[in-house]
Amino acid sequence: MTARVRQTVTHLADGRELIYFDDTEPFVSGAATRETHDGRDLPPVAASAEMRRDPLTGEWVVFAAHRMDRTFLPATVDCPLCPSRAGSCTEIPADDYDAVVFENRFPSLGALSGGEDLVDDDPLWPRRPASGRCEVVAFTPQHDARFADLPLSRARTVIDVLAARTDALSRRPDVHQVFCFENRGVEIGVTLQHPHGQIYAYPFVPPRSQALLDRGREHHRRTGRSLQRDILEAERRAGTRLVWSGDAWSAYVPAAARWPVEVHLVPHREVPDLAALDDGERDELAVAYRDLLGRVDRFFPGVERVPYIAAWHQAPVRAGRGEMRLFCQIFSLRRAPDKLKYLAGSESALGAWISDTTPERIAARLREVAT
Amino acid sequence: MTARVRQTVTHLADGRELIYFDDTEPFVSGAATRETHDGRDLPPVAASAEMRRDPLTGEWVVFAAHRMDRTFLPATVDCPLCPSRAGSCTEIPADDYDAVVFENRFPSLGALSGGEDLVDDDPLWPRRPASGRCEVVAFTPQHDARFADLPLSRARTVIDVLAARTDALSRRPDVHQVFCFENRGVEIGVTLQHPHGQIYAYPFVPPRSQALLDRGREHHRRTGRSLQRDILEAERRAGTRLVWSGDAWSAYVPAAARWPVEVHLVPHREVPDLAALDDGERDELAVAYRDLLGRVDRFFPGVERVPYIAAWHQAPVRAGRGEMRLFCQIFSLRRAPDKLKYLAGSESALGAWISDTTPERIAARLREVAT
Repeated sequence: MTARVRQTVTHLADGRELIYFDDTEPFVSGAATRETHDGRDLPPVAASAEMRRDPLTGEWVVFAAHRMDRTFLPATVDCPLCPSRAGSCTEIPADDYDAVVFENRFPSLGALSGGEDLVDDDPLWPRRPASGRCEVVAFTPQHDARFADLPLSRARTVIDVLAARTDALSRRPDVHQVFCFENRGVEIGVTLQHPHGQIYAYPFVPPRSQALLDRGREHHRRTGRSLQRDILEAERRAGTRLVWSGDAWSAYVPAAARWPVEVHLVPHREVPDLAALDDGERDELAVAYRDLLGRVDRFFPGVERVPYIAAWHQAPVRAGRGEMRLFCQIFSLRRAPDKLKYLAGSESALGAWISDTTPERIAARLREVAT
Repeated sequence: MTARVRQTVTHLADGRELIYFDDTEPFVSGAATRETHDGRDLPPVAASAEMRRDPLTGEWVVFAAHRMDRTFLPATVDCPLCPSRAGSCTEIPADDYDAVVFENRFPSLGALSGGEDLVDDDPLWPRRPASGRCEVVAFTPQHDARFADLPLSRARTVIDVLAARTDALSRRPDVHQVFCFENRGVEIGVTLQHPHGQIYAYPFVPPRSQALLDRGREHHRRTGRSLQRDILEAERRAGTRLVWSGDAWSAYVPAAARWPVEVHLVPHREVPDLAALDDGERDELAVAYRDLLGRVDRFFPGVERVPYIAAWHQAPVRAGRGEMRLFCQIFSLRRAPDKLKYLAGSESALGAWISDTTPERIAARLREVAT
């Protein structure tokens, strides 16, 4: 955390943690002024998630049945991420803020303590409480902003926030992976339109992280080199899919991109996670990341807000720490101004991806919409 | 193919193959009466798909950029799967038919011959023409029917059709996996509402099939037993998620089901694919399959047509032939009458699945809506 961002921890009425990250002088948030507190009468959070290992894939699947009744697309007036006003208490008990993180009220992860057992007493089906934590990150008090509209200093603050939370959550003994991401767009089911990201701290290594580790190890055994470094260098050398090139970061459409819009933002230095980035890398990242999200929003003529997922792949916390490099995968399922890419039989059942475009076309368009 | 179904091969105006499967006497289709032929002026099919291996996952991704302009949700009057009428030529040049299979006009797979090369000359990125074949299976001439509405004899014919096509496509030297499936519902992007399935014959082993093989092999090494047999027996023994139980087939919600609605229909005899089923197994399958699809349509009160994917997992054609058992996975992304399950950051980027329900609840509901 740089000195320009002040972190203040407080709690909501139901005991959930809330952390203000103030980056403006004078510090404006409720925690700084201490003028407000959460006076709502909230029931305790019902976190009772469990996870079961799927014997057909070896992967853990999380069951969070308590989430069935979560808030869905509230009207703007009820937005839980806007600042509170007299007579209207949101999730953020302050009349203004810069950026803020709090525990999700309808968490996918989080469980009372408990041990491993077996579904129906059968060793095929191990089951555990799905511990971990789900956090929400509000980027700005402005309800209608897009990430690409944030001032550069706020984009930089958000990176500090994600880095600080990655560091803090990695210290929890039950956490194996910290995943920072932004889901945006009703097209992918986003229930809150206020600009925000999320952080999931998983009690297991997610399948894609494990696959990245496995592939990296195989490549290293075979060549003695780092797979992710080799890919970065090959993309920079080829140049055909390069979209952004700086001192500390490069962005390219991967040569086998699955999504109709996809770009990877990769640091030149091999670091495991956001927390390991130095100040210079964070400064350039704020520029590059905001720039890329702006290009995604200009990708389709006539579409102002393209649905996207911005996913920070980080090294797992407890295994393969030095074997996987941080990168950000930004992608969209929009394939035309009026069409989406659906994951139907081939993708959803067999995992076989069919793209309707090519990585080179995606890169050409992302270069075309540069400012 | 049983004697009650007559197979007649013909060709469409652009050279694509079309096969009538007649199960009624007198045989009503165009091929039987020979009264019609496809008089349309069609451009040649532009199949130029390629596949690239993703170095981060080791998986092949198919690029079929020529599909960008395919037909999307035509009005009923233009339905290409309805029988042709005077002055209106559809994909099926007959004024009536029973069931019919033809090559997809906008195929995801299929390529002119050619060898393997490298994207940008880099060994990280192998590339091949994506050969193989995509077929459409029209189940009935009735535009508004659901599979669950078909007479039992037609459901039985469809099984014969899928088995016959699995057998025929498995003989092609370029095919490694034959995948029969039905995508249904605008919610998953289905462009044609007329009841139909599809068959993809892949020139590689899809990731999920490979994972099933890998897990099965690991289980066999460890226990000396078949993983799929062990799971079937465990589900039948537990009974808590069992939905259908017959002489030759059982259906259950798997203990780690990912989707809000999911059921697996599994033969008791270990067979690699649909073509290997005997007459008795096919008879019972027609009953069980139609019954389960009807239950899916009754799952949500007030929802008449639940979007679903019915996916036939078969053993790959050229590897692990005796190591994987046929099963049908039926699943839906609908999670409530007015809500869908979206695959956002956790699922799409990290492959970590979060379910909002439990397998036991799904099974209870599927039992409740039995007729």
